Amino acid sequence: MKTPVLLEKYRSEIESEIKSVIDSRSCPLYKMMRYHLGWMDRKGNPVQGNSGKVMRPALCLFSCEAAGGIYRQALPAAAALELVHNFSLIHDDIQDNDRERRHRPTVWALWGKAQAINAGTAMRILANTALLRLGRHGVPLEKQAELQALLDETSLRLIEGQYLDIEFENRYDISQAEYLTMIGGKTASLISVSMKMGASLGTECEDTIAGLSEAGWQLGLAFQIRDDILGIWGSSNETGKPAGSDILRRKKSFPMVFALENSRDGTKEELISIYKNRLMDEETVRRVLEIFESVDTREHAREMVDRYCASASGILDSLELSPVSRAGIDELVRFLASREY
Amino acid sequence: MKTPVLLEKYRSEIESEIKSVIDSRSCPLYKMMRYHLGWMDRKGNPVQGNSGKVMRPALCLFSCEAAGGIYRQALPAAAALELVHNFSLIHDDIQDNDRERRHRPTVWALWGKAQAINAGTAMRILANTALLRLGRHGVPLEKQAELQALLDETSLRLIEGQYLDIEFENRYDISQAEYLTMIGGKTASLISVSMKMGASLGTECEDTIAGLSEAGWQLGLAFQIRDDILGIWGSSNETGKPAGSDILRRKKSFPMVFALENSRDGTKEELISIYKNRLMDEETVRRVLEIFESVDTREHAREMVDRYCASASGILDSLELSPVSRAGIDELVRFLASREY
Repeated sequence: MKTPVLLEKYRSEIESEIKSVIDSRSCPLYKMMRYHLGWMDRKGNPVQGNSGKVMRPALCLFSCEAAGGIYRQALPAAAALELVHNFSLIHDDIQDNDRERRHRPTVWALWGKAQAINAGTAMRILANTALLRLGRHGVPLEKQAELQALLDETSLRLIEGQYLDIEFENRYDISQAEYLTMIGGKTASLISVSMKMGASLGTECEDTIAGLSEAGWQLGLAFQIRDDILGIWGSSNETGKPAGSDILRRKKSFPMVFALENSRDGTKEELISIYKNRLMDEETVRRVLEIFESVDTREHAREMVDRYCASASGILDSLELSPVSRAGIDELVRFLASREY
Repeated sequence: MKTPVLLEKYRSEIESEIKSVIDSRSCPLYKMMRYHLGWMDRKGNPVQGNSGKVMRPALCLFSCEAAGGIYRQALPAAAALELVHNFSLIHDDIQDNDRERRHRPTVWALWGKAQAINAGTAMRILANTALLRLGRHGVPLEKQAELQALLDETSLRLIEGQYLDIEFENRYDISQAEYLTMIGGKTASLISVSMKMGASLGTECEDTIAGLSEAGWQLGLAFQIRDDILGIWGSSNETGKPAGSDILRRKKSFPMVFALENSRDGTKEELISIYKNRLMDEETVRRVLEIFESVDTREHAREMVDRYCASASGILDSLELSPVSRAGIDELVRFLASREY
């Protein structure tokens, strides 16, 4: 599957912007960030090609352009959003005990959890420092303050979502509504605000800003459910995680929530008993997959993804974007609906 | 030892200000903050008397008044500073594996490390939200933006200091200069900026702001070295930590750094060998204390504290504070030099 143009066209400028923030700092703390962002190996030698999708900053810059603005003005916001996203990954990996990400050891696996906590928290604060550079682009102070507050508020919602995700670990009665609240915080809020921030740097039109923000929310939900599909049925080569990863980790992602809600005749109890008590060997994972299949979990998850993508497209329809912008985001939406990584 | 007036006079207003920020949020994530701040027990029942010294906010409000301002204007800054300090304590306890603080179980000991990471990081972000309330006091946007940036920058320095502190765990060649850099980041930077923020909300006079900021830096160094003394020779009843706590935890605090630098004739090697290899039983702790005593570690540490306190007083002398302000800060300085908790 081809990477959408939108995820490539701004990549080097986004990376330069983030570098200009991190490279001004000398404490070895920041080497963990450079490693995590895929610019260096663990020894500090430059590397390439491990930098993730940069989707949030790309959506921010796209939204700025689509709203009629000059995307370069929004680069500090794009950098800030990517830093917020990556802070959450560094802490996530600690919290989930994950030793690998993007085919490489996670920050904590190399430097220990204590230092990885520092790297993540500092990266979150550095996002605000990145946003300060909006001043260089002549963005008025009122707008800067508005975006700083938005970034902080969104980060709180993200952590609230992460709180729920962890809290779900000990629960087997999670409704789809609760699941959506959780991924709304954990994932959709930052993707939505990426489009909102870009849009509000490109236009003063409240309807356009609200529309792009809402489209981002729908895309965020779609993105996370697709992520949940890949966490169970994705290929290890593509995702960089082991196959059936979310079963091995006993995550209450969408498939498990759906299967618990829909399985009957003792299978629900069986699922619970497996997740609570059983060693997750190959055979057990196979049995979980069988139960998921028996209630059409995968098909339902796909339908959810398609529905949220369609909803995003519907909102975008109402916004009268330029044909070029529209083609770019349409390609990205198709990618999000069926991506394998 | 009597608690200084400065640490009591603003206490209830500081607490109300922090409450107004946290209480507007409903996710259970925030109950961990309420517990940590000493307002609730683990079940959510209101409690009192576990709230720490509130020294940083008190120094902020004092500095605002001393510089000629109205301290209530600075309450949002005071709240923000206390939140930054407490975020660092929550993460510290995780990183140091400490199960008790202020005679109570730490946040991670009750809710697990994953959720405690969330509580700490969210509390750090909430500090920015607290600072937004400066707008209600008519503080101009330029000043608000300046203080937000200062709070973020100081938080980065704090984490850089924390990084060094953890990095010292595997080192036995730490110079006093390196130690001072570490506590400068970990402790003095936030205490200094507490006085700077208060001052800059009270006056436009650059000399006064710089003077109070520098006095805060000296007090911060004194505070941390006194803390290090208490970490080894403090009474468990007063500090809420076990006696010899920093030896049991093998911390490279000032006494250990000083003793390593000054011990001769094989005792340096003995110290290193104990910290590297030996079980820390009562006898071993006694031997470490003996080595510390043999090079007058405690006396030297006290002298350092006195020197930094004198330096702070000298700077305050140059500022022509009102007699009332001066008496208040003098009492606090005496407290910091000899406090037992």
